Amino acid sequence: MTTTPITTTQTCDEVQIRQLITDQANAIRAKDVDKIMAHYAPNVVAFDVKPPFQIIGADAWRRMWEACLPCMPASSGTEMQDLNINVSGDLAIAHWTFHFTGIESEHPAAQMEFRITASYYRSQGRWQIIHEHCSIPFMPPERI
Amino acid sequence: MTTTPITTTQTCDEVQIRQLITDQANAIRAKDVDKIMAHYAPNVVAFDVKPPFQIIGADAWRRMWEACLPCMPASSGTEMQDLNINVSGDLAIAHWTFHFTGIESEHPAAQMEFRITASYYRSQGRWQIIHEHCSIPFMPPERI
Repeated sequence: MTTTPITTTQTCDEVQIRQLITDQANAIRAKDVDKIMAHYAPNVVAFDVKPPFQIIGADAWRRMWEACLPCMPASSGTEMQDLNINVSGDLAIAHWTFHFTGIESEHPAAQMEFRITASYYRSQGRWQIIHEHCSIPFMPPERI
Repeated sequence: MTTTPITTTQTCDEVQIRQLITDQANAIRAKDVDKIMAHYAPNVVAFDVKPPFQIIGADAWRRMWEACLPCMPASSGTEMQDLNINVSGDLAIAHWTFHFTGIESEHPAAQMEFRITASYYRSQGRWQIIHEHCSIPFMPPERI
């Protein structure tokens, strides 16, 4: 993967993005909607793994989390792989893959691997998520 | 959407990214694999709309295009909507939605809308695609 030239500043930026991703995973595990939403820009655009096709704005994205979190088992978490971060100026992009942990093996989501791409913009010294895209590959119906 | 503060340089960068996206759409329409691949970094990571789960490196990504392009109707193109670009330093991120044009209405892809996120890194003055994520929302099998 192309990475930005390592300088002290850029390494510090990458550490901040890694921390934000970790904080976000912990907030999801804790089902804490306020903490989850604290990292999103007001005008975030989300392409989520399931419908709707796109979600525009933090208010609509918050409603998705409020509807989704009660459906997740209390013990569930996520395990991340292949994390890749690029930072330059006030923009950062990260992508990784993940699967759920702590859910019953018979649950459909237990068998699924997800891909996620997120972008971050630093405004007044604070990184915020401006875009998130989560998906699984599309299998045509005849192949399911 | 959060956009970077407008300066002459950043506007110029955004124009370059828009041009790259247009060039790429034209190369896909022309089924010109060399032109398509000219914009990708050697170590691009792609999350494609269909399996495999992820594709790492330009060689593997080129093989996907070589296998995919002959299956596309000669007259097909794409129509883009909701284009959003952010640029800072040597990093850019764009996302948009699109559907195919010029394919028979009975073709499954004629009815489908796609989401795409792409990130770009400028190396030696030249923007290259370092990551691409294309998907449709996942519909659980029982709802198809």
